[in-house]
Amino acid sequence: MSSDRVRHPGLMNKVVSAEEAALLFKDGMTVGMSGFTRAGEAKAVPMALAERARKDPLKISLITGASLGNDLDKTLAEAHVLSRRMPFQADPALRKAINDGEVMFVDQHLSETVEMLRTRQIGPVDIAVIEAVAITEQGGIVPTTSVGNSASFAILADKVIVEINLNQPDALEGLHDIYIPTHRPTRMPIPVVTPESRVGLPFIPIDPDKIAAIVFTEKLDSSSTILPPDDETRDIAGHLASFFLNEVKQGRLTHRLQPLQAGIGTIANAVLHGLVDTPFHDLTMYSEVLQDSTFDLFDAGKLKFASGSSITLSEEKYHIILKDLVNYKSRLILRPQEISNHPEVVRRLGIICINTALEFDIYGNVNSTHVSGTKMMNGIGGSGDFARNGYLSVFVTKATAKDGRISSVVPMVSHVDHTEHDVDIVATEFGLADLRGLAPRERAPLIIANCCHPAYREQLMDYYRDALKLGGHTPHMLKDALSWHTRLSDTGSMLKDAETVAKAG
Amino acid sequence: MSSDRVRHPGLMNKVVSAEEAALLFKDGMTVGMSGFTRAGEAKAVPMALAERARKDPLKISLITGASLGNDLDKTLAEAHVLSRRMPFQADPALRKAINDGEVMFVDQHLSETVEMLRTRQIGPVDIAVIEAVAITEQGGIVPTTSVGNSASFAILADKVIVEINLNQPDALEGLHDIYIPTHRPTRMPIPVVTPESRVGLPFIPIDPDKIAAIVFTEKLDSSSTILPPDDETRDIAGHLASFFLNEVKQGRLTHRLQPLQAGIGTIANAVLHGLVDTPFHDLTMYSEVLQDSTFDLFDAGKLKFASGSSITLSEEKYHIILKDLVNYKSRLILRPQEISNHPEVVRRLGIICINTALEFDIYGNVNSTHVSGTKMMNGIGGSGDFARNGYLSVFVTKATAKDGRISSVVPMVSHVDHTEHDVDIVATEFGLADLRGLAPRERAPLIIANCCHPAYREQLMDYYRDALKLGGHTPHMLKDALSWHTRLSDTGSMLKDAETVAKAG
Repeated sequence: MSSDRVRHPGLMNKVVSAEEAALLFKDGMTVGMSGFTRAGEAKAVPMALAERARKDPLKISLITGASLGNDLDKTLAEAHVLSRRMPFQADPALRKAINDGEVMFVDQHLSETVEMLRTRQIGPVDIAVIEAVAITEQGGIVPTTSVGNSASFAILADKVIVEINLNQPDALEGLHDIYIPTHRPTRMPIPVVTPESRVGLPFIPIDPDKIAAIVFTEKLDSSSTILPPDDETRDIAGHLASFFLNEVKQGRLTHRLQPLQAGIGTIANAVLHGLVDTPFHDLTMYSEVLQDSTFDLFDAGKLKFASGSSITLSEEKYHIILKDLVNYKSRLILRPQEISNHPEVVRRLGIICINTALEFDIYGNVNSTHVSGTKMMNGIGGSGDFARNGYLSVFVTKATAKDGRISSVVPMVSHVDHTEHDVDIVATEFGLADLRGLAPRERAPLIIANCCHPAYREQLMDYYRDALKLGGHTPHMLKDALSWHTRLSDTGSMLKDAETVAKAG
Repeated sequence: MSSDRVRHPGLMNKVVSAEEAALLFKDGMTVGMSGFTRAGEAKAVPMALAERARKDPLKISLITGASLGNDLDKTLAEAHVLSRRMPFQADPALRKAINDGEVMFVDQHLSETVEMLRTRQIGPVDIAVIEAVAITEQGGIVPTTSVGNSASFAILADKVIVEINLNQPDALEGLHDIYIPTHRPTRMPIPVVTPESRVGLPFIPIDPDKIAAIVFTEKLDSSSTILPPDDETRDIAGHLASFFLNEVKQGRLTHRLQPLQAGIGTIANAVLHGLVDTPFHDLTMYSEVLQDSTFDLFDAGKLKFASGSSITLSEEKYHIILKDLVNYKSRLILRPQEISNHPEVVRRLGIICINTALEFDIYGNVNSTHVSGTKMMNGIGGSGDFARNGYLSVFVTKATAKDGRISSVVPMVSHVDHTEHDVDIVATEFGLADLRGLAPRERAPLIIANCCHPAYREQLMDYYRDALKLGGHTPHMLKDALSWHTRLSDTGSMLKDAETVAKAG
């Protein structure tokens, strides 16, 4: 079995235990690890590294594709191994270390990290740790359920540790399409012209001499943390479906829409899932993470093809899909996140981008990352790669949070990740605002009327009316612009009249 | 002479006066006019339209490439012709009408406007008005000193009015490279792979039957409003040159740097001009507007090639360069702004992007557009096309404005056009902060120490220190975050201690 998985004849003598592999790390190193949205992360070596660091403290800068599963970020944070972390995370323990200032977190557009590594603006990567299904006869690394930044990590690193996961199915081989942009100043166009385009290799091509250690593992990916659709997310999905239907009626879209991208998480997944019961057909996805909804759409006969950088599923779905992968394989590609999120391809294909906001304001600015402007939640992820360059940029959120004490529609967002210039559509369970071609003074009444929770609507309209008296292209009262957030911190609610909190819940 | 300029045999009978052409407009129409950064705008017809509207009121939505010269935006605003204006402007009278809410201004990334028109998300364009040097034998339109959005306006509009400007030099013919991205879903890569790439036609190809009127004009472009370099802009240029030299030393850049983009205006022009006295050589530009500095660099033997969407020069330079154009022509291309600013090409070429900030904050967020978060200055222009997708994103500004009463480095910007994720370098006359790979808590002390005016440094450090006590990935005190702006409005200065204002001046 292991000879099926490590097919290069000279490499079996590199097999070691995770503990032995963990001895390769030195204090101060920069490490690139596989893993994107809880899929395909190296599992044993980082655990062994955390274990080692508990006795023999050392710190590393850790770069991944995106978030890790199997509580790895938690374990590494609690072992105080991380001095620096990029470009994304989604773990409560690591989040605390970031917000306490213990870990320096660099919150980057997911398409940009390896571009910066390649041009040596960050890094260099000392060691890459990559989960693989197999190593080919020539020493090529076949990734598992994600590609993320793994290809460039392996290509750029001095040393590579490969974790061969015996429980990741053989059928994953052939799914990946590894394309690395050519060097400047003679970089050629990326030849991806449809979601289906295969333009690279089915493995990561590296010099096998760089493989410093091979570790066998059997641990599965963690299942996704998304919740099933509820009434509110179903309503959001309904507003978007109606909007798309009207676009078809207006002759701007066909029933095939445009290639779809949906961010990680419950709401974006629910919105995609909502397309199951619509007249749209022959849909395609050009996204970063492929969630349950991708496979629901396949099974409903709605989706023709899906390109992503990872497959992240609920526990139930994970076991069904990975067992049955061979039946989906001809309709799937996994790419490096640099390519799945690449501005060039996103603009060329004309993607419809659906991402989740923490909050948005009356002029259409979006906060995706910072609770009350200060505390990091997860990171911007790929939302900026898509929102800036796509055909249509949609942001969705529930209208309130914390039992109505927080309005997701505010006078001014407390942190901006997506500017008014990059946001076409905002939607909550109450409705959708189409901001295309509108000036700020036209956007505000629309957003307040269509998207704001009724309990906050009057309060928000009052702000806008008072701001309007001061004039300006984007009317604001700077003294009160962030008062909803400071009221939340002072009183526990953004509502002026605390008695109406119950109604908003 | 006019037969040299209107070479299509059937079109001379379309020649009319500007007043006659202006009768083609109807109330409520959407009009696309040539013109980008005061270069190559249609001159006679919009003036005649304003004249007509004074007697016979009508309103239009006006879309251009960028800002117009010859006081056209002023004249149109004062004649109350404009109900809606996009995607950029730079005129005080129009700015007032925008900030008063009379004109709905849509502030867009310059690469995106025609993409939205083509997909009918805005528009449609009823009439295009395009300044031209000539109409070819086949009816192709040869633009003058800018391309801007002219090609797509002419292609998409129902009717086209051509202004043949007899004073724009013949030598402009052959300078333009008109390439329009192919239709989705089979859009092919844009074949521009170096600034020198010629991939299109030297004229705008349209059906000559759409040409509804031809007007002859002789008015010259307005000269640019940029000021010559001063001590402060020279210092900013010096900091950037030192930074680039160090990048060469570190092996990240060569003396050819990467293709350069510099935004419109005095500071960016001065920064480019500053490269005249450096060891860099064989430079190229892939920019939107080519200003005096481009030709200074040509004349100094530093610049090999420049691609842009317009040529905008000071009065002195204008007369020299346009007379001598034939000597520069082989080293110049003018492209549609969709291509000069296209995310695909910007990322592929790896552009060094230098743009001007109104203000930036201690975490590297940039405000390019809104005075005190409310009043529109000019618009975001192309800065977002470049900053998001380029190799290196630099923002420059003088450290103070209004004789020291305004600090350009603030705790929190009052409007965000460029998020922390898109900003690599910020610089003022006091120094430069290299933010690449840094977390917010690392950026703040660096920006305060290197970029802030000394009169504001302690006050800014106090804010940061107090915010730090509250914790968070991006420490802020939301109650005070915008207090510098409200203090300015209340007291006339951002300084806490008004007596030190003089020192900051």
